[in-house]
Amino acid sequence: MADPIKLGIAGLGTVGVGLIKIVQENAGLLTTRAGRPIEITAVSARSNSKDRGVDLSAYDWEDDAVNLAKRDDVDVFVELIGGDAGPAKAATEAAIAAGKHVVTANKAMLALHGQELALAAEAAGVNLRFEAAVAGGIPVIKALTESLAGNNITRIMGVMNGTCNYILTRMETAGLPYDTVFEEANQLGYLEADPNLDVGGIDAAHKLVLLSSIAYGTQVDFEGAVLEGIGRITIEDINAAAEMGYRIKLLGVSQMTDTGLSQSMRPCLVPVASPLAQLEGGTNMVILEGDAVGQIVLRGAGAGEGPTASAVIGDIMDIARGINIPVFGQPASGLASVPCISTSAENQFYIRLNLHDEAGAMARVSAALAEAGVSIDRIRQESHEDDAAPVLIVTHPTDRGTLNGAVAAIENSGVVLAEPVVLRIENV
Amino acid sequence: MADPIKLGIAGLGTVGVGLIKIVQENAGLLTTRAGRPIEITAVSARSNSKDRGVDLSAYDWEDDAVNLAKRDDVDVFVELIGGDAGPAKAATEAAIAAGKHVVTANKAMLALHGQELALAAEAAGVNLRFEAAVAGGIPVIKALTESLAGNNITRIMGVMNGTCNYILTRMETAGLPYDTVFEEANQLGYLEADPNLDVGGIDAAHKLVLLSSIAYGTQVDFEGAVLEGIGRITIEDINAAAEMGYRIKLLGVSQMTDTGLSQSMRPCLVPVASPLAQLEGGTNMVILEGDAVGQIVLRGAGAGEGPTASAVIGDIMDIARGINIPVFGQPASGLASVPCISTSAENQFYIRLNLHDEAGAMARVSAALAEAGVSIDRIRQESHEDDAAPVLIVTHPTDRGTLNGAVAAIENSGVVLAEPVVLRIENV
Repeated sequence: MADPIKLGIAGLGTVGVGLIKIVQENAGLLTTRAGRPIEITAVSARSNSKDRGVDLSAYDWEDDAVNLAKRDDVDVFVELIGGDAGPAKAATEAAIAAGKHVVTANKAMLALHGQELALAAEAAGVNLRFEAAVAGGIPVIKALTESLAGNNITRIMGVMNGTCNYILTRMETAGLPYDTVFEEANQLGYLEADPNLDVGGIDAAHKLVLLSSIAYGTQVDFEGAVLEGIGRITIEDINAAAEMGYRIKLLGVSQMTDTGLSQSMRPCLVPVASPLAQLEGGTNMVILEGDAVGQIVLRGAGAGEGPTASAVIGDIMDIARGINIPVFGQPASGLASVPCISTSAENQFYIRLNLHDEAGAMARVSAALAEAGVSIDRIRQESHEDDAAPVLIVTHPTDRGTLNGAVAAIENSGVVLAEPVVLRIENV
Repeated sequence: MADPIKLGIAGLGTVGVGLIKIVQENAGLLTTRAGRPIEITAVSARSNSKDRGVDLSAYDWEDDAVNLAKRDDVDVFVELIGGDAGPAKAATEAAIAAGKHVVTANKAMLALHGQELALAAEAAGVNLRFEAAVAGGIPVIKALTESLAGNNITRIMGVMNGTCNYILTRMETAGLPYDTVFEEANQLGYLEADPNLDVGGIDAAHKLVLLSSIAYGTQVDFEGAVLEGIGRITIEDINAAAEMGYRIKLLGVSQMTDTGLSQSMRPCLVPVASPLAQLEGGTNMVILEGDAVGQIVLRGAGAGEGPTASAVIGDIMDIARGINIPVFGQPASGLASVPCISTSAENQFYIRLNLHDEAGAMARVSAALAEAGVSIDRIRQESHEDDAAPVLIVTHPTDRGTLNGAVAAIENSGVVLAEPVVLRIENV
């Protein structure tokens, strides 16, 4: 039996506590499978007095995560502090500098500083692993980095934010407006301290750009991702989509093209029969497409104590077993810096307009679309009581640029009361 | 850049050709990701003259797979010959004895001789890897062995034979009887040389028992699996299931209990809304459940040139990257030998009886069920023109032993014309 591998865990929130439970309760299993015991040496968190429901008495306590990261009796530094910079990044850097492996669930830190941290880890010959940062318990990082390593990846799609999924599903099933369900989610503790991380699509985009980097051998580029949150989706949009056979999901799509990398995280319409449409609440789904494998669909819990801790311990087991693969699947020094572009793919689009209820308004809309070269698949005007006449349009396939031109022309024609809502239809 | 890793490929059927295409077409990608070139040194197959649509001129030819396996210029022996014994096993053993890593897609060989081969590989310090043997391109072996290594696995379910799935789906959509669709599948080349490997559930059970071994740390035990093929499923069963909101799938379920390991591969009714019910044709799905991760669903192509070759090259990439993990996720010498049992779990069951059309027949059936303690949820007798009165029964939850007793009593009462069809209802 080889020597134990020793963990220092920084951050004792949900995931940290979940990890400690696994290490304690499944100790025999872990030892048998890793070929060596997995031990916790020391932990660190903001408060030493809080009762977290797990017995920490056997572990040393460190007030400072950086000190924890540098301890001689720590082989693997487990970063569960969170936040893209601050103590999480400082401690991660300290661990790497001290020659420790790092396992983290921190998507923000890697989305913003992944290249720099990967270079440092690879120079030091240590692992920097982050399965838990993307889609919770779903083994998507490993699938992409290892299982599909023989594939030229052609596309990635994913629903990867449980809170947005909860809000959109709940609006549909309960018929409640966005603001009400947002408040409900807040009461339930589903929202990040900065809710825009969730509903603005930022958290999900952090995950998507990490997948892109592995898939296409490019430097992580969060700034290049196109982002749109779910805050402008109304119950009318959800109902209209449902009547046409679609559901609205915050969907990430990443694709390499001849002119650059296209990465977007936006609410989209997907067919109700699509596996994506059937996701509820905190369930995540990632779809990976490769030239050899075709399409692989992975589904599971995207967050929560057990699922996220399962991903963290999976990374730790790999390190215990001696696996050491470059952070993004190939040496970070060779990752390409490519321009990010808006996709040039053609899609159908859903447009919701609120028109001034005046003669000729609809004619001006139709003319603007026709002049821009956007043809209409379906159009519907609801009955209404006030001045705002809601008009729903589904276009034939067109590219985003052409569509944006048409929508700008409609806005300039002075017939709309509010900024139009434009959602891509993704027939996946 | 490290030295190239050199492959010897035995078997140039669909998967072998797919692998060669990946190695040739994605060479740059493979080298970048593995950190060393992946090269083919020599190949072997039955015929040296057949045009397989790939250029083999750069590779040495061996008539004998055993000789290929032992070559000094082969680091990894890729076994794509097939068959549980014969040349596949001889060459695998020769490769291990010569200190070569082995990658195989051969589920039959591993299901029947996995323990012996794993012991040999681990004694020799070489890898024996088989991602391609289970569910084609779906990375389920890696998910179970590595990603979920921190979990106590509680259940595995899977639809893992595309041919059965094709037959059952086609019967439903085209309204055709089993024999017609079976012949169609045969014409399309979907069936193994021995069709019972497919329709008898043997091939799918080979896959299931490999997953069980990893999940529960037990020796592979194909003999202990309960098997039932799809040959007795009629279009009436499919239609009756559909009317009640179910589809029939050849479903594998594996679970460890206090008294032993339960592994079954049987046609079952699953709710139409279940992700399992929505699989068509060659698409496979595996559901993994663990104490920490909850439920993970993996879906993808279960066979075919690209998907299966994708799994083979994934294993090769792991070996090229220096990964070496015990064959079944823990040392084979420590795998437990546990009794196989029929599950004691309670399920609803679907029963189709063909009764003599005589007074009192239904009364005797009802009495037999009641006496055995099986209560009826739904019962339906169809109108009919001949002597055989088809009766469809859905029971309330009961265990298989109680149900078997009831069915035996019905058969002994002399009212049935043919052996009853009994299918478990799995509400997953």
